[in-house]
Amino acid sequence: MSGSDRRRRGTIPAHAPPRAGDRRSPDQRPYPWVDDGSAALLTDLYQLTMLQAYQAERMHEPAVFSLFVRRLPERRNYLIACGLNDALRYLETLRFAPDALEYIASLPEFHADFIDWLADFRFTGDVHAVPEGTPLFADEPLLEIVAPLPQAQLIETFVMNQVQHQTLVASKAARVVEAAAGRAVIDFGLRRMHGTDAGLKAARAFHIAGVAGTSNVLAGQRYGIPVRGTMAHSYIQSHDDEAAAFRAFARLYPSTILLVDTYDTLDGVRRVVELARELGDDFDVAGIRLDSGDLSSLAIEARRILDDAGLHDVTIFASGSLDEYRIAELLARAAPIDGFGVGTRMGVSSDAPSLDTAYKLTEYAGRGRTKLSPGKDILPGRKQVFRFFDDDGVAMHDVIARADERLPATPLLRPVMRGGERLPDGDVSLEASRVYAAQQRDRLPARIRALEPADPPYEVEVSNALRMHHEAVAAEAAG
Amino acid sequence: MSGSDRRRRGTIPAHAPPRAGDRRSPDQRPYPWVDDGSAALLTDLYQLTMLQAYQAERMHEPAVFSLFVRRLPERRNYLIACGLNDALRYLETLRFAPDALEYIASLPEFHADFIDWLADFRFTGDVHAVPEGTPLFADEPLLEIVAPLPQAQLIETFVMNQVQHQTLVASKAARVVEAAAGRAVIDFGLRRMHGTDAGLKAARAFHIAGVAGTSNVLAGQRYGIPVRGTMAHSYIQSHDDEAAAFRAFARLYPSTILLVDTYDTLDGVRRVVELARELGDDFDVAGIRLDSGDLSSLAIEARRILDDAGLHDVTIFASGSLDEYRIAELLARAAPIDGFGVGTRMGVSSDAPSLDTAYKLTEYAGRGRTKLSPGKDILPGRKQVFRFFDDDGVAMHDVIARADERLPATPLLRPVMRGGERLPDGDVSLEASRVYAAQQRDRLPARIRALEPADPPYEVEVSNALRMHHEAVAAEAAG
Repeated sequence: MSGSDRRRRGTIPAHAPPRAGDRRSPDQRPYPWVDDGSAALLTDLYQLTMLQAYQAERMHEPAVFSLFVRRLPERRNYLIACGLNDALRYLETLRFAPDALEYIASLPEFHADFIDWLADFRFTGDVHAVPEGTPLFADEPLLEIVAPLPQAQLIETFVMNQVQHQTLVASKAARVVEAAAGRAVIDFGLRRMHGTDAGLKAARAFHIAGVAGTSNVLAGQRYGIPVRGTMAHSYIQSHDDEAAAFRAFARLYPSTILLVDTYDTLDGVRRVVELARELGDDFDVAGIRLDSGDLSSLAIEARRILDDAGLHDVTIFASGSLDEYRIAELLARAAPIDGFGVGTRMGVSSDAPSLDTAYKLTEYAGRGRTKLSPGKDILPGRKQVFRFFDDDGVAMHDVIARADERLPATPLLRPVMRGGERLPDGDVSLEASRVYAAQQRDRLPARIRALEPADPPYEVEVSNALRMHHEAVAAEAAG
Repeated sequence: MSGSDRRRRGTIPAHAPPRAGDRRSPDQRPYPWVDDGSAALLTDLYQLTMLQAYQAERMHEPAVFSLFVRRLPERRNYLIACGLNDALRYLETLRFAPDALEYIASLPEFHADFIDWLADFRFTGDVHAVPEGTPLFADEPLLEIVAPLPQAQLIETFVMNQVQHQTLVASKAARVVEAAAGRAVIDFGLRRMHGTDAGLKAARAFHIAGVAGTSNVLAGQRYGIPVRGTMAHSYIQSHDDEAAAFRAFARLYPSTILLVDTYDTLDGVRRVVELARELGDDFDVAGIRLDSGDLSSLAIEARRILDDAGLHDVTIFASGSLDEYRIAELLARAAPIDGFGVGTRMGVSSDAPSLDTAYKLTEYAGRGRTKLSPGKDILPGRKQVFRFFDDDGVAMHDVIARADERLPATPLLRPVMRGGERLPDGDVSLEASRVYAAQQRDRLPARIRALEPADPPYEVEVSNALRMHHEAVAAEAAG
């Protein structure tokens, strides 16, 4: 191929797609979903080319990889680690199915002996990790993998995909829960999250971070998370008038929440009062939902209308473009709101929709490894994070140390998998993770839990032993 | 329940989670993935409660729902419609599996006759939609559903989830492709996208929007998208030195791309030159990859070093925190870059990670429906979008009209499903969608394709007939 041809075509070597005759119309493909059988292919091509190279070079010595976040987003004082459970499940079940092997074999780079080797691929390594729900900071490992180099390499993409997303949304949700100051927060985000897996996994991550329930029925089934819901505008619209819709819904669901903003919010509230008069002792409506307009003044007016009618038990639930900032503002204005439905902005972590997550080789064949790329430094070797608490049990600072150091503080990383088998610390129930997360968040200093950027930020030091090891490895790498 | 109890507990009626004894440890649950069999539960609880109410009230008349975006994000002049294929597949395959019915039956709201009705649930409606790849604007329907009210209601959450995500990322990718001005853009985003489904579906949406290839191997297998890749820093780090790593990789993959920034970028480029001298005629390396530092000055320096060594054929590929703004800036500085690997910022559409998508009832039982909530107006009834082109084939403006109007312009919505069965216009190959998207994007005015906010924005009018219908329906709703 000539250089100019190559330039026109783009720069990465072309792997021919399957011949046109091999392609079915996408809707006829049997599995548009990702499941255990296809997760092995949910990786970057370079993982497979590197694996084949490691095979060819007989590079099977143990490697240590560390997964961490390089910098926190501007509007985050801490992260809530999440996603370990799905990462471990992937490692336990990782196999190349026959159709996956067939596809890889169809790509021009791959040799038959490599495909044979892939057919027997299993993850047999060790994993150390912080429990789901642990508050964490920049540079601190969420998890470390110790495994033969090809195994530890291949899993990078999938493990990062799960851990970064779940940590991202758990960290956002912790702020929303903080802002709601004890009032219930319900996840309404499924419809605007990024695909099906995001919707399912975020519901779980939110629950760990303190969100009380979810509208997502599948998350209720899979994880036992309480499912919650009210009614949609379309229900009101499809009836001849709002009063008829309220009456019909309350007949079937006496203790429901009625959505009052379809036509005029305060008129809607007055219709709830009329329904109460009409039903008398049978009236048991739990609340109203406000979903648009100036929520704080509408909540104040609605509370007054309800209280004037003696409906002190009818609560006010608010939704519509909410996030931690908006909730804090509503409560600062003393809006009498009893619970919040939070959707898109928590669902996609809209003010910081990704984390600067990295998964980096820190040791190979017993030698520490680093990088010298600007801004992308790596702390070499296996590590431990020690958290120091004051006498009141409040976290003061962390020290990132070498794994074999023993500091007088609480170590955060635990062995969760050995030889490809999950250990008890890797098999924690959702409820236990949720309780643990709440306890650990309560032990953070108030300025770190706050919505505003913490000044000073939480202090994370590197131990002397790790610093010296880092300098030695960097000097060697620089040649 | 007393009011104060209710307030303390939060506000939405509690649906008890499964009893503790029913819960298995999450890792033992058989399907942590979403597949055809579990998609029916990937919905909001209120869809099911409303469905039961529609059952009880015998409300099965035809309904029209419209899916549209209320407002474009600030930094988008147009959208690229995407996600229709997955929406239609969902409608074709939607069934409640036995375990789904069992879970719903375990929730306190649902009656046995409703569960029986759900067991037979099928989508039997019609769908009109714009083809995937169509440039679209605020208020214009991406798709319209005509079906018995309960069917059209239930599908809201899932269809929105797929269409909003895929439209979001296709719209972002179109901007990145525009900025790259003919140079190849490769999707590197899987590791930081929101879960597995996002990674898979985004690769497809990107390809429709003009992205040349993806690192995502599963997307290669499922959709026939060309898969591409280079090498990771860990490959370099795991070798004793950079030269050894380059030599080994190029031996196995002669026309590979070598990553040069692990230690010192320009030293890395010089090592590629040394490798060329060493290999002589056997040297066939396709390019180098820059992944950190000042990409424009490094590209200029790297090009000089390569050209001085006669390596004019070795291309330069850039990656690392790229998006349309950064690419435009690099090319404005005349950086000699031949292709771009774009990851996180395109993968999560970082400057606008969600769209203000709505799925709204516009007609029921033959009567137009609207809402009067502030800022959340709805155009009633079935609609058509007509696009007017000038004599050069450039789009001038659109008119949103009633579905039965005939305007002298191109109608964008087509029937894609009838009676639950896909029609030919709903069964378009990925390649055809990609070609169509490129053609349609080429027909947009330059100011709309540009990265800066268009002044004036693209003009979208509402036809007189639709406006009059809207006013009549709104007057009726206001009572």
